[in-house]
Amino acid sequence: MITMADSSVNNDGSSMSEFGLIARLAEFGVAESLQNPESVLTGIGDDAAVVSTPSGKLLLTTDAIVDGVHFRSVDERWYDIGWKCAVSNLSDIAAMGGIPDHALVTLGVPQGASMDTYVDFYSGMNEAFAKFGGAVVGGDVVSSPTMFVNLALTGHPVSTDDGEPAWLQRGAAQVDDLVCVTGSLGGSAGGLEVLLSGETNPSGQTLVKRHFHPTPRIELGNQLVRAGVRCAMDVSDGLVGDLEKLASASNVQIRIDMTNIPIPPELIFMFGTSAIELALSGGEDYELAFTAPESIVKALQEENDSRFTVIGRVTEEGVDGGKVSLVDATGEDYEPIRKGWDHLNG
Amino acid sequence: MITMADSSVNNDGSSMSEFGLIARLAEFGVAESLQNPESVLTGIGDDAAVVSTPSGKLLLTTDAIVDGVHFRSVDERWYDIGWKCAVSNLSDIAAMGGIPDHALVTLGVPQGASMDTYVDFYSGMNEAFAKFGGAVVGGDVVSSPTMFVNLALTGHPVSTDDGEPAWLQRGAAQVDDLVCVTGSLGGSAGGLEVLLSGETNPSGQTLVKRHFHPTPRIELGNQLVRAGVRCAMDVSDGLVGDLEKLASASNVQIRIDMTNIPIPPELIFMFGTSAIELALSGGEDYELAFTAPESIVKALQEENDSRFTVIGRVTEEGVDGGKVSLVDATGEDYEPIRKGWDHLNG
Repeated sequence: MITMADSSVNNDGSSMSEFGLIARLAEFGVAESLQNPESVLTGIGDDAAVVSTPSGKLLLTTDAIVDGVHFRSVDERWYDIGWKCAVSNLSDIAAMGGIPDHALVTLGVPQGASMDTYVDFYSGMNEAFAKFGGAVVGGDVVSSPTMFVNLALTGHPVSTDDGEPAWLQRGAAQVDDLVCVTGSLGGSAGGLEVLLSGETNPSGQTLVKRHFHPTPRIELGNQLVRAGVRCAMDVSDGLVGDLEKLASASNVQIRIDMTNIPIPPELIFMFGTSAIELALSGGEDYELAFTAPESIVKALQEENDSRFTVIGRVTEEGVDGGKVSLVDATGEDYEPIRKGWDHLNG
Repeated sequence: MITMADSSVNNDGSSMSEFGLIARLAEFGVAESLQNPESVLTGIGDDAAVVSTPSGKLLLTTDAIVDGVHFRSVDERWYDIGWKCAVSNLSDIAAMGGIPDHALVTLGVPQGASMDTYVDFYSGMNEAFAKFGGAVVGGDVVSSPTMFVNLALTGHPVSTDDGEPAWLQRGAAQVDDLVCVTGSLGGSAGGLEVLLSGETNPSGQTLVKRHFHPTPRIELGNQLVRAGVRCAMDVSDGLVGDLEKLASASNVQIRIDMTNIPIPPELIFMFGTSAIELALSGGEDYELAFTAPESIVKALQEENDSRFTVIGRVTEEGVDGGKVSLVDATGEDYEPIRKGWDHLNG
């Protein structure tokens, strides 16, 4: 889904960078959503839209992948690409705490492409849907000079104890909430670096597997909603950059204790002291970041002790545009080398 | 949406044409749909999927357009392209007799693209939604060497007098049904030819307008369902080719009386005797073709006398793979020069 745009874009249209245009288009989409009808309960800018239909509430999300930008056709890892394409959409539904239902797939097919490519792609994609929920029910196949795949996925919100549907949003963080993250971070970015380096040792291959086989946190997302959590997003573009979007949507300041960030042991083994940077800025882990009052987090910890980690706290509210700060092991403020994530270039 | 594939594809994978691959992928999609869960009431192969969700029935469709395949960025007709992109999806919902609800838009943005392009594009797209129903509620923006746009659109079926939702399908034609088409045919294809020729006379410009400003038959589609019609599709890839898909889905033979095919007067003025060929094979008119028993057609004619035309009859059932034949003014069988439609090349 469109995410809130980086605010540091070039406003001079004539010399705008590609990234700048994409950011402004996302902002434009946000502006356009103001014209949306009342049926839109959560609009552009969250992981998925929540809409009210004549027959109930619906979650809607879409994500596209493009050859040379999000994957490399030369690698011919079609099963893996299919899996990840499904997961990136499933993760948007997980980030809303919802249940995936039906998917539409559009294939942009270049000249000279082979049927085998797509058989493998479909196989990876369908396996992810079979495992986490959802099924492809239609789509479009078009000729295109550049190979691309677009997935659109519907879902529905879970119901809470009172029978009412509820979901997670980026803009619902409250002051004093604890900030938590599921699983561990940086593994996917580390895996991409290992892949590009050609390294073949087992720790490296564990990371490569994380890169190609991320898990969308559907079930955990559902549990969060039922436990009373209301603020979350998925970590797809790097922890710091993504938390900045959450902080901005909630107008809060978030303070992260770096020593608490969960890092896979293989990442430390392979990258040593650089592992923390990969955990701070690496994308495509598809874990959930959420905030909740301490009482809810405690109750969740009793059920799920090892499935998420408390990494910080919401320290201030009414912070226009939001803010995220990091504290290192010595108690000093820390400035990460990068905050965001350029999919193929890590 | 994926349409049933042309069966005359090359089965030799190694020397398969681009069209052959696209056709086989559509077939593959159809095959995959067999694994679909019971919630899919009408799956891949129709204009839109009909799915059952925990809270009601939903229509789902998606359509992509690619620079150099479905539009030419060099023409810079961004408003028109946005309009047509919305209409091609709206028409899929119209073909199911449904009501459009929510759209997700994915933009594939090439380096050097300008913001103005997308402002105009959004403007055309949003205007079509404002006029015919539906609204953009989210999407994705990705970098891509080739410009493309993917739209996914949800809708819901109308309810009949007994309060039950009902919809139109390709596979519901019955023997002795009359075959009808809304509006007139060939105008869009004629408009594209006029555009490419640079011709500027008023009749030509009327056709160009038809090419860029087609109307999705949402309201008429709803009326058809309420009147008891159950079989329809939209004419987006050329009348004969599209009716062959309908005949194939219904396993029937259809006989079309060519003299009854509605042709816009401007098309006859501009193209003379070639106008009929454009009406038989030209795409992107976004009219509806439907079949229904004579009694229903008569009742509809009394309400809508000039909004559709009877052009033929379903003459046989149990015809494996279906068949469409044409009869000319002298009562002889007629073989059209082309049946299908290659979007940009007419």
